Amino acid sequence: MAKLLYEGKAKQVYETENPNEYIIHYKDDATAGNGVKHDQFEGKGVLNNTISCIIFDMLEEAGIKTHMIEKINERDIRVKKVEIFPLEVIIRNITTGSFCKRLGAKEGIVLEEPIFELSYKNDDYGDPLINDDHAVALGLATRDELKYIRETTLKINELLKAFFLKLNLKLVDFKIEFGKTEDGEILLADEISPDSCRLWDVDTNQKYDKDVFRQDIGDLIETYKAVLARMENK
Amino acid sequence: MAKLLYEGKAKQVYETENPNEYIIHYKDDATAGNGVKHDQFEGKGVLNNTISCIIFDMLEEAGIKTHMIEKINERDIRVKKVEIFPLEVIIRNITTGSFCKRLGAKEGIVLEEPIFELSYKNDDYGDPLINDDHAVALGLATRDELKYIRETTLKINELLKAFFLKLNLKLVDFKIEFGKTEDGEILLADEISPDSCRLWDVDTNQKYDKDVFRQDIGDLIETYKAVLARMENK
Repeated sequence: MAKLLYEGKAKQVYETENPNEYIIHYKDDATAGNGVKHDQFEGKGVLNNTISCIIFDMLEEAGIKTHMIEKINERDIRVKKVEIFPLEVIIRNITTGSFCKRLGAKEGIVLEEPIFELSYKNDDYGDPLINDDHAVALGLATRDELKYIRETTLKINELLKAFFLKLNLKLVDFKIEFGKTEDGEILLADEISPDSCRLWDVDTNQKYDKDVFRQDIGDLIETYKAVLARMENK
Repeated sequence: MAKLLYEGKAKQVYETENPNEYIIHYKDDATAGNGVKHDQFEGKGVLNNTISCIIFDMLEEAGIKTHMIEKINERDIRVKKVEIFPLEVIIRNITTGSFCKRLGAKEGIVLEEPIFELSYKNDDYGDPLINDDHAVALGLATRDELKYIRETTLKINELLKAFFLKLNLKLVDFKIEFGKTEDGEILLADEISPDSCRLWDVDTNQKYDKDVFRQDIGDLIETYKAVLARMENK
């Protein structure tokens, strides 16, 4: 019935009988360092799907256009068919990770204004940082599309920051992806979860995201469960 | 008398008795790969100074504000004292070099519009690519300064492209640097020479720049002399 169209590190995308819809299936895999580190965690896919659906619902209600149609079950969602821009769209509110490593910047600096960053989604080249001119030259997006993506991402950042702050979590940085429908409408796609966000406890700076796996400093499933618990108890 | 203030890979900067002026001295050194490859070529400093002075004069006449005061002798120029922005400002008109290496792009593609690129001048981190948000976050320049630098660089590109085309050379890409006077005026600084530009013969695509040294495909001095000869015979 459903035909596997694409398999990523943590998800599968299936074609459906409806040519305008896909089904996304969340797997239990976790990877880091461009796939160098790889493990499986029973229940991870369910947790990420649950968390991401709550966040996409919140964003939709706030006026952000997303690919989301409906949650089918604990691991599967039905989404609008989009062609994903080969861009990792990144916001940084607090310095850490590759930003500090690449530039020798101090960790943990709260930025006066968020940093917006684009990476070219290309595993062979390690998802290299690019600027708008590169994206246009490589044919990844037009100037107008990049403008919309930037503006929408900054809005999403404000919504997510407020959302997580209510859970006593600081949104340190995050990665999102956008896609385009056949009609040219740009939609927020992919997922928003502790796989794609860095979340630090406001009081203790304890990490509530995939860094516990990347850095071997905690139990991934217990950490993601704790994020979901804060979301459900807010 | 003159006090050495800074020694770079190919030049020295001296303080003078005038607190608003520096003297720049061109050395014979050539380096590549962030200093990994290093050699000396008798007469290189004289050639680069001569070439750069002709280009800075041309740009000044076309209305670009530069640090240039006067050529003192074949290796030394007197310039306005500026604090250099720690930015490598790069324009690409044709794809090659790090752009292709980083992104897996094809070599030799003539771009529809020039690519503007910033690198953070920091040898320890390999002069990493950055975007405007990074530059502001790192305190390297303000948004207004970046806007001026971008606009001025695009103008310089048009002037240089036309200048070199008259010499039957294509301006493939180049790196420039800007500095700021104590009054906050932004001036084109550093040098423009076959060390900092890629120049290809219009008919044969033969390289007339430092790539002959980087790639061991020609005699550096003969190559730079040939560029100067075209400038003097135009």
